Amino acid sequence: MPEALEILKSHTRPVTESFIVPVWESPDHVLAKDVHAPFDWPPRHKSAYDGYAVRSSDTPGKLKLVGEAVIGTSDVGIKIGEGEAVYVTTGAYLPDGADAVVPEEKVVVEDGYIIVKDKIEPHQYIDPRGSITRKGQLLAKRGQLLTVYDVVGLLEVAVTEVEVYRKVRVAIISTGNELIVPSDPISTQMKVYKGKVVATTGGLLEAFIYEYLPWVEIVDSVLLPDNKEAVAWYIKHLLDNVDVVLLTGGTGPSNIDLFYQLKDDIGGELLFRGLFVKGGRPTSAFIVGNKPIIGLSGYPLSALHGFIRLVYPYLRYLGNVEKGAPPLYIVDAVLTDSIKAGRPRPIKVRVEYRDGVYYATPLNKVYQLSSANVGLVLANGIAFTGAENLKPGDKIPVLLYRDPIGRKYPV
Amino acid sequence: MPEALEILKSHTRPVTESFIVPVWESPDHVLAKDVHAPFDWPPRHKSAYDGYAVRSSDTPGKLKLVGEAVIGTSDVGIKIGEGEAVYVTTGAYLPDGADAVVPEEKVVVEDGYIIVKDKIEPHQYIDPRGSITRKGQLLAKRGQLLTVYDVVGLLEVAVTEVEVYRKVRVAIISTGNELIVPSDPISTQMKVYKGKVVATTGGLLEAFIYEYLPWVEIVDSVLLPDNKEAVAWYIKHLLDNVDVVLLTGGTGPSNIDLFYQLKDDIGGELLFRGLFVKGGRPTSAFIVGNKPIIGLSGYPLSALHGFIRLVYPYLRYLGNVEKGAPPLYIVDAVLTDSIKAGRPRPIKVRVEYRDGVYYATPLNKVYQLSSANVGLVLANGIAFTGAENLKPGDKIPVLLYRDPIGRKYPV
Repeated sequence: MPEALEILKSHTRPVTESFIVPVWESPDHVLAKDVHAPFDWPPRHKSAYDGYAVRSSDTPGKLKLVGEAVIGTSDVGIKIGEGEAVYVTTGAYLPDGADAVVPEEKVVVEDGYIIVKDKIEPHQYIDPRGSITRKGQLLAKRGQLLTVYDVVGLLEVAVTEVEVYRKVRVAIISTGNELIVPSDPISTQMKVYKGKVVATTGGLLEAFIYEYLPWVEIVDSVLLPDNKEAVAWYIKHLLDNVDVVLLTGGTGPSNIDLFYQLKDDIGGELLFRGLFVKGGRPTSAFIVGNKPIIGLSGYPLSALHGFIRLVYPYLRYLGNVEKGAPPLYIVDAVLTDSIKAGRPRPIKVRVEYRDGVYYATPLNKVYQLSSANVGLVLANGIAFTGAENLKPGDKIPVLLYRDPIGRKYPV
Repeated sequence: MPEALEILKSHTRPVTESFIVPVWESPDHVLAKDVHAPFDWPPRHKSAYDGYAVRSSDTPGKLKLVGEAVIGTSDVGIKIGEGEAVYVTTGAYLPDGADAVVPEEKVVVEDGYIIVKDKIEPHQYIDPRGSITRKGQLLAKRGQLLTVYDVVGLLEVAVTEVEVYRKVRVAIISTGNELIVPSDPISTQMKVYKGKVVATTGGLLEAFIYEYLPWVEIVDSVLLPDNKEAVAWYIKHLLDNVDVVLLTGGTGPSNIDLFYQLKDDIGGELLFRGLFVKGGRPTSAFIVGNKPIIGLSGYPLSALHGFIRLVYPYLRYLGNVEKGAPPLYIVDAVLTDSIKAGRPRPIKVRVEYRDGVYYATPLNKVYQLSSANVGLVLANGIAFTGAENLKPGDKIPVLLYRDPIGRKYPV
């Protein structure tokens, strides 16, 4: 796999087109430029409490109330002199002259005056100017995927625009003559009973991309008959508008045929084929110009397996994602049963959380078949095997696709 | 918190309305009825290989090719008798009479005949009828949140409809006179510089709900001025159409005022107030009829904290979610620094993954301020403290909101 990834990378380049967006429209995009603080923050002393803005040198003492400044006030317009105080709310900018706040509960109010018993130190109970960020300070680096958490943080310090890369554009083509798009429940049930298969592999990849690869835009997702000319024609017309084509099903020898068809039509080159071969369903890649067409299994879980191992890191590369991506929910679980060596393959497991440890129990053998995805309804995790025999007690990475048994929320 | 949760539960009941949907429209809904397998699956013997369907009793031997059956064929329409074979593809139903398959690579084809050298056992290289599920077998229980993984699994065994609950309906009201909705980047920057605050708390809660509570529908999310009459009026008119109102900001004494305003207008009862008080920003609840209005902090992270600890489990309860929810990405991380005891509060941390262990390092103190959400841009996790002092080496639950440093993907 690492080699396949390197081959794909060496034939293609990450996205370079970028544009400027308001911060509130930036989530799910990757920063194309570092972000620096535009101002010292806060730009003025800010109250950290509801209370009274004062000159600390006047405390303790009896101070005259000369006004108020509430949070969100655009212009304070008040200045305090010796022996004066101004009522402020949490988050409000202090009036000129004030260098500290006395919290409400620490004063006695009397006839337009406040009595402060304690000595208040300079900058006490306030966020002083520039105490949170300094103008020019690096806040986020090129390559960070932006999320709603960044929106919250950046807007607070008055960063309102950022430069981001355009999204990576992917098309998904599902092929297979046995596949159908569901219509109504009853006729769909009849068709499935008679041997048709509802096309779900493309939908599973789409859902995974929505969840974990928000920097990727799915520009098309179609079901085509398993006909080389039709698929080749479709791909040829897609290529201008996408960075990568994912092709599920029709792998194996006919996949190679398809790739030769493409070669005849528009040129191109086979990069590799037959990774993760299990039941004759390889992960392959062909390249036309600088646009790879990656062939995945037609089986939903096998396709997802190839996607996670190869396509996921490749799409991170294409999208310039250095950090900040939604974390894949992979736990290192303790196996409770053995798994025989073989080609790397996904194993449907039931994950339980007990005393701080995740335990993974493979479902019965019958549910491990590529044709027994009903196991996905019963399981909550997918374990990724390597090439070795595994025994109870060994640790294995597991993708949790729903909540583990026994993990209590809230924290 | 557990008490507050129990109070909310004791005043309200989970959603009972349910309806039937096609399985492909079921993701993000919770099962209202158990799902059983409608048929033995597969309903006929199914080939597990590309090869030849045979009567195992005829092997080894020379068999006459009498037809083919490919995957997806609605009607096989072929029957094999003694000494006959039919070409089949993986996943195809076997013709009547056949009870096993000989994989392609194990035969020699010759003039309309195949020569099988090995003895093939009954059911070898096939998925026998009923081997994956038996008619009536329980596949998923009431209370399971359905996902795309269930769609894949259920459609495969011809489950095409399910009964699900309607979603839980939530409205989010953000209040605060200092809050603004952003317009264009430049004037927004100027307003923030002058002391206004862009309203992001509601958006953060919305994003969290979209990610982790897909069984919840956000029917409204508005910003209102911090005016008791306006907020009370709005809530009063919302109540018929929602199960829960979340109110961010305007907490503290004015929240109570609001609640009394509601009491005057439409009746109701204060359930509790002042949970997680930190800087005077309580989590409170009021109930009108059986509709709770839950007050959260106006500070984004404090609101999220209250949401995760109280509202998350409550919305699971209202939505009948027993299992299958997107797992909250909470890791038990080893602290690298100390955290002082105090009210439970969220701590912005940087999480690193090293040799199978997550380490959490709190950001500098200044970034822990409620008014320093810029820390969210620098951090990747939110640690949840309890009431005790914590020292380096202690374990602490951390919500990872983006990928941990040093965790390599793919698996």
